[in-house]
Amino acid sequence: MSSGKTVGFIGLGNMGGHMANNVLKAGHKVVAFDINTAAVDALTTNADASAAASPGDVAATADIVITMLPSNPHVLKVYLDPETGVLAKAKAGTLFIDCSTVEPSVSKQVAAAAAEKGSTVVDAPVSGGTIGAEQATLTFMVGSKTEESFKQAEAILEHLGKKVVHCGDVGTGQTAKICNNLVLAISMAGVCEAHALGDRLGLDPKILADILNTSTGRCWSSDTYNPCPGVMDGVPSSRGYTGGFACDLMVKDLGLATSAASSSNPRLGLPMGGLAQQLYMMMSADGAGHKDFSAMYEFINKKA
Amino acid sequence: MSSGKTVGFIGLGNMGGHMANNVLKAGHKVVAFDINTAAVDALTTNADASAAASPGDVAATADIVITMLPSNPHVLKVYLDPETGVLAKAKAGTLFIDCSTVEPSVSKQVAAAAAEKGSTVVDAPVSGGTIGAEQATLTFMVGSKTEESFKQAEAILEHLGKKVVHCGDVGTGQTAKICNNLVLAISMAGVCEAHALGDRLGLDPKILADILNTSTGRCWSSDTYNPCPGVMDGVPSSRGYTGGFACDLMVKDLGLATSAASSSNPRLGLPMGGLAQQLYMMMSADGAGHKDFSAMYEFINKKA
Amino acid sequence: MSSGKTVGFIGLGNMGGHMANNVLKAGHKVVAFDINTAAVDALTTNADASAAASPGDVAATADIVITMLPSNPHVLKVYLDPETGVLAKAKAGTLFIDCSTVEPSVSKQVAAAAAEKGSTVVDAPVSGGTIGAEQATLTFMVGSKTEESFKQAEAILEHLGKKVVHCGDVGTGQTAKICNNLVLAISMAGVCEAHALGDRLGLDPKILADILNTSTGRCWSSDTYNPCPGVMDGVPSSRGYTGGFACDLMVKDLGLATSAASSSNPRLGLPMGGLAQQLYMMMSADGAGHKDFSAMYEFINKKA
Amino acid sequence: MSSGKTVGFIGLGNMGGHMANNVLKAGHKVVAFDINTAAVDALTTNADASAAASPGDVAATADIVITMLPSNPHVLKVYLDPETGVLAKAKAGTLFIDCSTVEPSVSKQVAAAAAEKGSTVVDAPVSGGTIGAEQATLTFMVGSKTEESFKQAEAILEHLGKKVVHCGDVGTGQTAKICNNLVLAISMAGVCEAHALGDRLGLDPKILADILNTSTGRCWSSDTYNPCPGVMDGVPSSRGYTGGFACDLMVKDLGLATSAASSSNPRLGLPMGGLAQQLYMMMSADGAGHKDFSAMYEFINKKA
Repeated sequence: MSSGKTVGFIGLGNMGGHMANNVLKAGHKVVAFDINTAAVDALTTNADASAAASPGDVAATADIVITMLPSNPHVLKVYLDPETGVLAKAKAGTLFIDCSTVEPSVSKQVAAAAAEKGSTVVDAPVSGGTIGAEQATLTFMVGSKTEESFKQAEAILEHLGKKVVHCGDVGTGQTAKICNNLVLAISMAGVCEAHALGDRLGLDPKILADILNTSTGRCWSSDTYNPCPGVMDGVPSSRGYTGGFACDLMVKDLGLATSAASSSNPRLGLPMGGLAQQLYMMMSADGAGHKDFSAMYEFINKKA
Repeated sequence: MSSGKTVGFIGLGNMGGHMANNVLKAGHKVVAFDINTAAVDALTTNADASAAASPGDVAATADIVITMLPSNPHVLKVYLDPETGVLAKAKAGTLFIDCSTVEPSVSKQVAAAAAEKGSTVVDAPVSGGTIGAEQATLTFMVGSKTEESFKQAEAILEHLGKKVVHCGDVGTGQTAKICNNLVLAISMAGVCEAHALGDRLGLDPKILADILNTSTGRCWSSDTYNPCPGVMDGVPSSRGYTGGFACDLMVKDLGLATSAASSSNPRLGLPMGGLAQQLYMMMSADGAGHKDFSAMYEFINKKA
Repeated sequence: MSSGKTVGFIGLGNMGGHMANNVLKAGHKVVAFDINTAAVDALTTNADASAAASPGDVAATADIVITMLPSNPHVLKVYLDPETGVLAKAKAGTLFIDCSTVEPSVSKQVAAAAAEKGSTVVDAPVSGGTIGAEQATLTFMVGSKTEESFKQAEAILEHLGKKVVHCGDVGTGQTAKICNNLVLAISMAGVCEAHALGDRLGLDPKILADILNTSTGRCWSSDTYNPCPGVMDGVPSSRGYTGGFACDLMVKDLGLATSAASSSNPRLGLPMGGLAQQLYMMMSADGAGHKDFSAMYEFINKKA
Repeated sequence: MSSGKTVGFIGLGNMGGHMANNVLKAGHKVVAFDINTAAVDALTTNADASAAASPGDVAATADIVITMLPSNPHVLKVYLDPETGVLAKAKAGTLFIDCSTVEPSVSKQVAAAAAEKGSTVVDAPVSGGTIGAEQATLTFMVGSKTEESFKQAEAILEHLGKKVVHCGDVGTGQTAKICNNLVLAISMAGVCEAHALGDRLGLDPKILADILNTSTGRCWSSDTYNPCPGVMDGVPSSRGYTGGFACDLMVKDLGLATSAASSSNPRLGLPMGGLAQQLYMMMSADGAGHKDFSAMYEFINKKA
């Protein structure tokens, strides 16, 4: 299988570690970097994987580099640091695929900096969680200036997920991701309020879920990920809100949405999104930041 | 067809008029009352329909009475007025089916008053709008103390809709309805904010809708009733937000939800629902009260 | 002192009991009613006070009647009940002073009904709490159609408080009261959020209060009733949020504000007031409904 | 008067220009930088003022440097840029007084970087607006690690304002400022909602203001800066909401508050502050971003 390319991979966390493994499974060599050396050690037990000393050193040896980083400042540093950043050492013509979820303006900023050096950045944030990362069933939302660079990115990403969508120019992948999560956060909070109200008024939660799921209240948060314990099996609400998508991560994504709205021109107010952001933070302050975000049901439905 | 029963019908508005017609089509006689005599005149062009002088007079001549009224005070007056109300003149054993959308506590109050006189009230609010009322495709959410009275109600209602669900005891039909509309109002506002953000950031609305509809942001408001003009045909957003479910009606239903939450024990705060209620009112004050509630998109996405 | 008038008094609760005593102290006779007979017994240990069997019987024997009742339905029943209500038995020309805090439309409704019978209702809700009621230092906000009826009301009320303001026509007393409490609820929540933020960031709360109280954040909630324990003595926050104005009472007043805004024409959205209402309800659900409303500080400043 | 020190001044905008003039009036020499060379030219018509080529060059020639910059990134660049930043060229022992309003964490970050080079940063954000800057009546909220550096800063700042408060360690000046503006933004919105409700219900706004200002709703936004046209003279609401503190600047300060709350540990939700932030943004999107923030009254009180 070693006829493949050498793919750089920066960021071997809960998501990135699985994704890098899937790059290897696709027959590519991987040169990797993470500040957590244990994660690098784990990956490089595979003979086709090797470690680099810095992000820049990854870029120096790869034609395609995938980055999977926690947030805006990490992406800015990995791409733009004058000493250790990838753009400081990348060969002209390198394709960077940033799978991090960051503000669209950050994607545009690093893409512009790359373009000055003759390289290309596409943003490709994902949905599907750690299970999707492991099983290569992620969805990638890709912002790419050209169809050509999208196709190049797709050729790799199709080994890491089941769906790769070209959303538009650079930054639109991020926009699609944060818009989706904005709706998700809000509709989940709505479903939690409705189930809490049904509970207060003596309506069986399974009957309420049936009504919602066949009516205009139907949404993923009710029919696939119902937050009320006892309604569905195999979802976080059925196991004490463990697993799933942590409240604190939703806070981060809502922060990206409200920040992007605030800095758009003209400004855009997001009253529901802004309130959702504060509510998930209140829930976090109440001790549930690590729980699945559907634990909003518990937070709303308090009975002292 | 005149082998049917005599069914009383009180409230011949946009919904009730169609529903009364469907009772007639089912082979029943109808005795009707509405303060709008023109609506009564229109119905009684059908030889099987006749007019009564008051709600009480309807009840005096019918074994089953359907009521379809605008709001809490109308229901209280039609049922409880000592002179003109239905309970003042009803025969013991009468079944009242209240299809109005009112607070669950109102349904319980009139049901308790009816029980004292040996009659039965079930609450049976609907979803499906005026088209559903005309085409007999409504969904009825029924709160009934006994399976027996539910079955009796179902035997009539199945001629007026395609789905009749027994939600539980009296009031749970209302609860199911207002919980559904609570989720609907909130998720619609969320979809509107997401499409506004996508628009500000240059993401094609059809691509955003595709992402939402195949991801965790999927909901009826995005995949069936998308509020962003140009995304879907045949929905209010494609025709200037005409038709559909008026903003002011959503305000009413959100008022029922927050009021019921406020008077539950212990109280229940509905932060997202309460904010949605105020936002739809701001939209109404801005001149869009008569528009479909999905016109929230226009309200959020202002660009001065 | 018995040269005074006979004043009717209906509603001898925490506020009304003190107020009725102050009517007696002013040299008037009082004929009283309350469904709580113990409260009537307590008052009628004073020889100038006597009990009546119903609100209507109070009205039958008094030229001036003061009412101090919990909420809308109580006022409607006491005034309008066809058998026991005051208007059923009042002499023409009676002046009713309703000190209850209710929706302005309720004041208008009972005033209109009274006018039909030749009597007058002025609304005169109070601020000042139970201490103000006991010490006769209340402020009365009076809605009166005429200056004459305001003067009549003032002649009595000046014995029960230190300030009697004519706000305008019937209902404007209520409007003034609920507008004031709307600002109070919102500004208190704002001060609580600011003190919580200061606490998280290591700013001494006394220094923060000093800054607020000499800057543009200055408000009664910061300079007179500071919600952060340790900043001021003699306020609820210094004694475990006991005493003061209960969270649940603030919920009621916010409900009057949002309800009045909802039914005004055109509608009025109150986003901050609506959210405050839900937050005080969340706080109530969390077990603090009986605490002073400044306990919002504890609710906001949770640290799990 | 030239016995004074040489004071560096970076940032000669609407505020900084006046402040730099007041430094000159106090008898000091000023060496200044601004990217807007016209502002530098205006200042250096004074013989005691001279221009520097970069922030770093200012620092190279002054023992005390005052900075007055628009936002977080400007402060970070002016202090930390490895080539042009002040810390790159400052002599050890320099005192930096940052009068910008930025996130407390930014103040801490630049103070830590300065400490590594043997210099000191105090944060000293102001209140009082451009008039206060011109007339030297500003209030300075100072965060200083030591009393000594506070005293040094105070010796200069007392020429630029009338009040200099030591709030605590570095960052607490920022915290005090954003906490105050958080209360201000929220209480102003509350006063606007109350005046809008009073207006809908026919209450004279001057009477409402009188009630608020002598009751528990009293706040700076009602008694000093009333947002309802016709209530007070000499405030922005009396002149079409011109002058004053722009809505867009309030949006910025609310962003600092919610951002600081979000990154505190544990997180802190600010539901009222977060909603206020979105509402002022909606108002900005509606075309009022440049108006005084009290124009929230117009935004809330729409009547279509």
